[in-house]
Amino acid sequence: MIISNLIPRISYGGDYNPEQWERSVWQEDVELMKEAGVNMVSLGIFSWASLEKKEDDFSFEWLDEIMDLLHDNGISIDLATATASTPGWFVRKYPESLPVDEKGSRYAFGSRQHYCPNNFDLKRRIQVIVTKLAERYQSHPGLKMWHINNEYACHVSRCYCNTCANAFRTWLKNRYVNLEELNDRWGTRFWSQYYYEWEEINPPRMAPTFSNPGHELDYTRFMNDSIFQLYLTERDILRRLTPTIPITTNFMGPFKPLNYFEWAKEMDIVSWDSYPDPTEGTPVTQAMWNDLMRSFRKGQPFFLMEQVTSHVNWRDINVPKSPGVMRAWSYATIGRGADGILFFQWRQSKAGSEKFHGAMVSHAPKEKSRTYQEVKQLGNELKKLEKITGSTIEAKVAILFDFENWWAFDLPSKPHNKINYIEQVQNYFRPFYEKNIPVDFVQPSDDLEQYDLVLAPLLYMVKQGEDKMLEQFVSKGGTLVVSFFSGIVDENDRVHLGGYPGPLRDLLGIYVEEFVPLAENECSTFSSNNKEISCGLWREHIHLEGANVLAAFKEDNFLGRSPVITENQYGKGKSVYIGTDPERGYLSELLLELASEKNISPLLNVPENVEVSVRVSKEKQFLIIVNHNDEQVTVNIPNFVDYQAIIGADFEEENLVLCAYGVAVLEK
Amino acid sequence: MIISNLIPRISYGGDYNPEQWERSVWQEDVELMKEAGVNMVSLGIFSWASLEKKEDDFSFEWLDEIMDLLHDNGISIDLATATASTPGWFVRKYPESLPVDEKGSRYAFGSRQHYCPNNFDLKRRIQVIVTKLAERYQSHPGLKMWHINNEYACHVSRCYCNTCANAFRTWLKNRYVNLEELNDRWGTRFWSQYYYEWEEINPPRMAPTFSNPGHELDYTRFMNDSIFQLYLTERDILRRLTPTIPITTNFMGPFKPLNYFEWAKEMDIVSWDSYPDPTEGTPVTQAMWNDLMRSFRKGQPFFLMEQVTSHVNWRDINVPKSPGVMRAWSYATIGRGADGILFFQWRQSKAGSEKFHGAMVSHAPKEKSRTYQEVKQLGNELKKLEKITGSTIEAKVAILFDFENWWAFDLPSKPHNKINYIEQVQNYFRPFYEKNIPVDFVQPSDDLEQYDLVLAPLLYMVKQGEDKMLEQFVSKGGTLVVSFFSGIVDENDRVHLGGYPGPLRDLLGIYVEEFVPLAENECSTFSSNNKEISCGLWREHIHLEGANVLAAFKEDNFLGRSPVITENQYGKGKSVYIGTDPERGYLSELLLELASEKNISPLLNVPENVEVSVRVSKEKQFLIIVNHNDEQVTVNIPNFVDYQAIIGADFEEENLVLCAYGVAVLEK
Amino acid sequence: MIISNLIPRISYGGDYNPEQWERSVWQEDVELMKEAGVNMVSLGIFSWASLEKKEDDFSFEWLDEIMDLLHDNGISIDLATATASTPGWFVRKYPESLPVDEKGSRYAFGSRQHYCPNNFDLKRRIQVIVTKLAERYQSHPGLKMWHINNEYACHVSRCYCNTCANAFRTWLKNRYVNLEELNDRWGTRFWSQYYYEWEEINPPRMAPTFSNPGHELDYTRFMNDSIFQLYLTERDILRRLTPTIPITTNFMGPFKPLNYFEWAKEMDIVSWDSYPDPTEGTPVTQAMWNDLMRSFRKGQPFFLMEQVTSHVNWRDINVPKSPGVMRAWSYATIGRGADGILFFQWRQSKAGSEKFHGAMVSHAPKEKSRTYQEVKQLGNELKKLEKITGSTIEAKVAILFDFENWWAFDLPSKPHNKINYIEQVQNYFRPFYEKNIPVDFVQPSDDLEQYDLVLAPLLYMVKQGEDKMLEQFVSKGGTLVVSFFSGIVDENDRVHLGGYPGPLRDLLGIYVEEFVPLAENECSTFSSNNKEISCGLWREHIHLEGANVLAAFKEDNFLGRSPVITENQYGKGKSVYIGTDPERGYLSELLLELASEKNISPLLNVPENVEVSVRVSKEKQFLIIVNHNDEQVTVNIPNFVDYQAIIGADFEEENLVLCAYGVAVLEK
Repeated sequence: MIISNLIPRISYGGDYNPEQWERSVWQEDVELMKEAGVNMVSLGIFSWASLEKKEDDFSFEWLDEIMDLLHDNGISIDLATATASTPGWFVRKYPESLPVDEKGSRYAFGSRQHYCPNNFDLKRRIQVIVTKLAERYQSHPGLKMWHINNEYACHVSRCYCNTCANAFRTWLKNRYVNLEELNDRWGTRFWSQYYYEWEEINPPRMAPTFSNPGHELDYTRFMNDSIFQLYLTERDILRRLTPTIPITTNFMGPFKPLNYFEWAKEMDIVSWDSYPDPTEGTPVTQAMWNDLMRSFRKGQPFFLMEQVTSHVNWRDINVPKSPGVMRAWSYATIGRGADGILFFQWRQSKAGSEKFHGAMVSHAPKEKSRTYQEVKQLGNELKKLEKITGSTIEAKVAILFDFENWWAFDLPSKPHNKINYIEQVQNYFRPFYEKNIPVDFVQPSDDLEQYDLVLAPLLYMVKQGEDKMLEQFVSKGGTLVVSFFSGIVDENDRVHLGGYPGPLRDLLGIYVEEFVPLAENECSTFSSNNKEISCGLWREHIHLEGANVLAAFKEDNFLGRSPVITENQYGKGKSVYIGTDPERGYLSELLLELASEKNISPLLNVPENVEVSVRVSKEKQFLIIVNHNDEQVTVNIPNFVDYQAIIGADFEEENLVLCAYGVAVLEK
Repeated sequence: MIISNLIPRISYGGDYNPEQWERSVWQEDVELMKEAGVNMVSLGIFSWASLEKKEDDFSFEWLDEIMDLLHDNGISIDLATATASTPGWFVRKYPESLPVDEKGSRYAFGSRQHYCPNNFDLKRRIQVIVTKLAERYQSHPGLKMWHINNEYACHVSRCYCNTCANAFRTWLKNRYVNLEELNDRWGTRFWSQYYYEWEEINPPRMAPTFSNPGHELDYTRFMNDSIFQLYLTERDILRRLTPTIPITTNFMGPFKPLNYFEWAKEMDIVSWDSYPDPTEGTPVTQAMWNDLMRSFRKGQPFFLMEQVTSHVNWRDINVPKSPGVMRAWSYATIGRGADGILFFQWRQSKAGSEKFHGAMVSHAPKEKSRTYQEVKQLGNELKKLEKITGSTIEAKVAILFDFENWWAFDLPSKPHNKINYIEQVQNYFRPFYEKNIPVDFVQPSDDLEQYDLVLAPLLYMVKQGEDKMLEQFVSKGGTLVVSFFSGIVDENDRVHLGGYPGPLRDLLGIYVEEFVPLAENECSTFSSNNKEISCGLWREHIHLEGANVLAAFKEDNFLGRSPVITENQYGKGKSVYIGTDPERGYLSELLLELASEKNISPLLNVPENVEVSVRVSKEKQFLIIVNHNDEQVTVNIPNFVDYQAIIGADFEEENLVLCAYGVAVLEK
Repeated sequence: MIISNLIPRISYGGDYNPEQWERSVWQEDVELMKEAGVNMVSLGIFSWASLEKKEDDFSFEWLDEIMDLLHDNGISIDLATATASTPGWFVRKYPESLPVDEKGSRYAFGSRQHYCPNNFDLKRRIQVIVTKLAERYQSHPGLKMWHINNEYACHVSRCYCNTCANAFRTWLKNRYVNLEELNDRWGTRFWSQYYYEWEEINPPRMAPTFSNPGHELDYTRFMNDSIFQLYLTERDILRRLTPTIPITTNFMGPFKPLNYFEWAKEMDIVSWDSYPDPTEGTPVTQAMWNDLMRSFRKGQPFFLMEQVTSHVNWRDINVPKSPGVMRAWSYATIGRGADGILFFQWRQSKAGSEKFHGAMVSHAPKEKSRTYQEVKQLGNELKKLEKITGSTIEAKVAILFDFENWWAFDLPSKPHNKINYIEQVQNYFRPFYEKNIPVDFVQPSDDLEQYDLVLAPLLYMVKQGEDKMLEQFVSKGGTLVVSFFSGIVDENDRVHLGGYPGPLRDLLGIYVEEFVPLAENECSTFSSNNKEISCGLWREHIHLEGANVLAAFKEDNFLGRSPVITENQYGKGKSVYIGTDPERGYLSELLLELASEKNISPLLNVPENVEVSVRVSKEKQFLIIVNHNDEQVTVNIPNFVDYQAIIGADFEEENLVLCAYGVAVLEK
């Protein structure tokens, strides 16, 4: 299914909740949408209570009406399946559908997403309403996309009820077949945890101290799978009834509980909700997650399903985006592979918990609303970018990212329990972001052939066969960078015995004797090319087994002058090991040099905080340039004559002038 | 009922718990009371277990005896209804009387005040014991006041049990009659929260994320009402059986869960418990709450029902009051309208959770006890102040204070979620406190005719009709000051659509486009009369609609030079809007200038930290002066010859000399 | 039972969990053990699940095999009773054996030590398995010690279930016989807490505010007794079946929930687990607890049952011990009375929650493992210390330490609620540690005749008769030092009326009028011998009643120049009272001067951070010297010719040179 054939334009719009408004507002809405260039809305996300009044008593008329109205006005519909929150009548009838926390307290109705993913009645009723919706609207000409549920697992990512306990046992039986296998994988001879019957196993509920890590890890897997199963249930119905309508569900960026890599395989298009904090400046985190979203389906364009025009409501202090920032960030997102820019939400609510969350149409009348004016400007501009849809990004650098590694690394009782996996990944992403070098994210089990440089920050878990994939990549000529505390455990969080870094030892040419974490706020120093570099968080006692020393400690203690960064020739390529958390500038220099050795260089040399992307289609190349500075900059475009301006190109010879938060899109 | 006719003296004494002591101590107690000038004690507050041994097995003899003993020694009795804590036998017999928290855990017996306010057996047994008490002592000559319960809702202000759930539904049916109305008020089309049956509604128990704000707000109202109903149940019995005995229950100052304005209407006299932290210096907070307490019943004198002689026991570190401070604060409280000064408690306990809470008689023998000597001095001094009882305070300044506004403002998911309502109110109170200008507190729905200057800090919620009251006040010539984020929602926390500040827009002559909160520790600058003023917390984008600019931002961002403080002529008066949290000195200057325009000036010009009050009776005027400094000060009394000294007046010509923590009371 | 006769060598080894490993590893284990000088292992601590597969289905074969293997290789066995964690089948069959928290949530299986100590089935099955083990191995020649359970109460020290509620009532009936007595002891007339039936009493579950302190204190006693009863149940079986095998259970140092003084009386030898944080430098805390462990059984040598070779896994950041530190701390522990040095654990786990906890054999191969090499060095050295076993320490200084005082002092609602009892005790221990003066710990009820100087820091609770013991000690010539807030309550936390410090008033010759705590970070100053000394936390208003002033405040407030440190002649001795928390140097000087008056002086004058101990046997004296500095020091041994070196004595004339973390053991 090629989405850009089905929707050959940049989709623009937002979540639309007409059930919160009287019909008189609906007409005003479509008029404003047309004025603002809106061509798609996500409809019905929280409409279950409005669509089904009691079990099997449906009320679709209002939805018919608004769908027709939208379609008649040229606005496509991303129709939600309305399953994000069960209605009050459902909860009253099926109180066991409410999830239970680890202490045994049951959640209550009253906010949203209050359901146990394994509840039988939930699954049964989801099937009914989704089938009804699909049957009713399968031929509706306005229907262009399915929006299954909403932000799965956002607040409750784990239920501990007895239904889940039963389902977990079934899941474990399927996974391990015999109980001896499970006992071995979890290491249950430890602390007298051995299981003699499947029925002895429960969710890892409130325990006196650390639960068994294998148990915890599998419960995370099981919960991911349970929730994924909900998704698949809906997906299968929709696929059957509407085989040509693309299906998505909106992701949430750095969301640990769900293994989005696995999910994305069963979606037609990835979409996500992005809410970076405007007080944090340049949105490097957003860029990283945009790249990740694009990578989930191997480079296929994705949708930004939700962002906010100005400010959210759920932070302690909700600072709005300055004028121009929303537009700049929208283009940056397109630059990294988005074919849709949508918002939560169309019209700011009058009541409820999100009434102070920004929207395309705010509480203020449109003519007095800065944000509406910006929305309108952007919507009308994006009409010019039709050709960009479907185009892709070409990257020669990849970062390994593995949800299961994240889950295992974050379990407690490690040598150092205050290291943030995402921050570590970002340390390795940032230099490429800052220099405008495209990066993909891949799983450790992926084929790496298309890349020249692969980074493996904190690859604590190395599963069966993953070491071989890395060895293959290096032996064929690639450069691999691995950071500290990698290669330690297998898929069940069991240590690879025989010496760290386990299965990566041969590839890296080193042996790590012991870990020597740094105390809070302590730092150390190493020496590289006669320069003194500071480092933090972590040290290791590395011994060489074939590798060369790139940098060594300068310590008074027993680490003495032991190696801290090493390089190992392996086949036609090489592997570099970084046994600490070096200062930012040094790491950047090191990584960019390794890239340079592979002839990987910036897309364009630009002033600081200017983001450059290139999207490539069969015929054309698009250069997207975004100025994240709050002042004007000038960007030199050497071969500027080759380019044709689509958006905002104010050239002086080969110098492109970008105002504060300014944007340019050029076509070649 | 005019209390000062019934009790024509300053009441002085404390909580008395004779059931903790052997009879031999009782005789010593009354002797010491007489010596110390004690003329009233609060008796029986936690005596339920001592009065009723099992259901309907009463034991009043000990109470008869102590009441006679007290009365025979000239000590009046403020008799408690003994309902503050249910006994162990009651809890065992009626375990469902224990309250339940939001996660479903039931509280246990073992401390105090462990009851669900809607429990049927509780209500039934309260009626029995209160009736018994009233019948038995209705003719006792020592009975001078009823002390219903104690510090209602102090620890558990919300119960989430099923009894409460049922009662809540009934309460909602009474309030909204039809369910469609409730759905509309709460905005339940949001997040699929629509209710089709009353039975679907429960208390806002533990939910995955933000509960519906309308739901939360009404549950706060319902809990206030439920607890209020307990009070009314007792009040009605006492009123019927003892129509001439004044009734009170002790408030707790800044206590959010209970709408004391509503409660006070059904009391004969307001009383409250005040425990300012001695490490905080001058008791401006205590002064503010004293003024509020006086305002609850439109200026009628109140009782300080509890304070401590020295130190409490429930802070982390319990620093005692320095010598003289207890006396100074007692006079300051009389100055703001108190006709009674009482303590918790008479004799320091030997056991239990409050044995390290200070008392009038401490663990130390009286002759070695500084605090007892201070108690004795004060008690004997206060005998001279008989004439002051019943006199009142005259204020031309009023501050709007609304519990429902507080409740709504403190709900989560606001633009800025770290602003403290009480602190904001205090910012507007402090300048008047510091300059000794009397202030009343009023509700937004009150008639404001008697005031010249009205302040409305953070009036987020404006209920139906309240805008008209304010318009009326200004149009007749008053000056109104409104601060930021006001006029935003209605009584159900629904946004007043059509542009902020909603119903106040016309009165203020402005339109607020958007809110621009300041990040943590960030501040901004505005310009007023060519001076640069700093401000924090909050900014708004204000547009003029008739108002003039008093001050404007000096910002680099999109707020540019937009107005921050505005002034609008409206009828014969004017309204001032303050769209930020300005530095303290500037706010003080601005407010005092507005007061000055209305010829409102300090009662007396005095050195810093000297508190001056005037109480006025039909014939006389009393000037109360308290030196909060720990060193001597001299106060100039221009017309000193008109005054006669009652307490501590050490004059040198027109200069009154006050020692550290010294006090003077003058009569004119 | 004289342990050093039964085990006449320094025991060396660690926890051994062969059930986690295949048999092929077992053989390697014993080889390595022999190489490393291991002569004892603790076996079977968490083996219940491996030994009993379902109720009464036992499987001892593997244990037979490993016990034989160990014994055949000359390794003694400290056999655990395997009861530290109930198996999964047990929990499934007896779900009520899981403990319940104060909110009513039941803990789950999945970590360890998940049992209610009063559960009937637990007790029944413990008896079965312990009897089985004792019967099977009573004649095994390798069995040298019993290790009952493991770290009793480590994670769950209180259960609140209904079984416990019933048992608590029985316990109370035994203790108080009649209910009126209990009511009086707990002071239940306060807050309407009076009990008319035993059945009204429950555990102090979640309450609205402070629970009754008498109730809380007795529940702590009851829980200690309940867990102790579990121990005694096992002890009695083992004593009956194996009367000549010594019995221990491993303590945990500063562990508040259990009254180890009482426990130790029913053990043959004290053992404990010690995990000081290497980032904290010199292990003064460890030294203090070593002294306490030795004192539990009046000076009898104890075992260090667990320490770690390098790093633990349960801190936020787990920094390893530097090379040499493990050895140094081991000798320091021997110096303070240990006859056994063991580790958790022998071989580092592959899976489970402790796989990153250091071990004697780490994940690294032995030849590459620094820690294994250190283990091996130490194990072989300790063979030379055979003669030291059974020798003891001679102390003339004692510190009063009372678990019940600790429990009572830590209850909330004190004048100052942020004072740490252990820190206060350590303040009085440290000067003697630093000057190498031996100290014992004693209970307030102990006979003090053998001591010349007794310190009583923070002796808040003084139980019946304890005052007499102290009076006797002083009147016979001893010097007693008492610190602030002492003598306040009786065994039920009821104030000793009549003036502080209650029963100590006569002995100390003072009267304390009131407590004047210092606010957070505030300090005060007093004057002593014309020097100005700063002090913190606490002040009191002290009046003399016979005592002399040693130091007095220099304050501006009402404490004026009142005494802060006093001295009172009493009989042939004297008592000193310290009414504040003085700066460290001053306190040290004062205490050492008092010691000096009694001719108590350092064992040896050494450089800073050098720890010196002397152990004395019938024939010999052993001098143990440990350098805690990370650089070389020289120690002068005046009478060096009398000594013979056993370990590491590098003499230059009378100067002993110790390298960084170096150790010497000399024999005289």
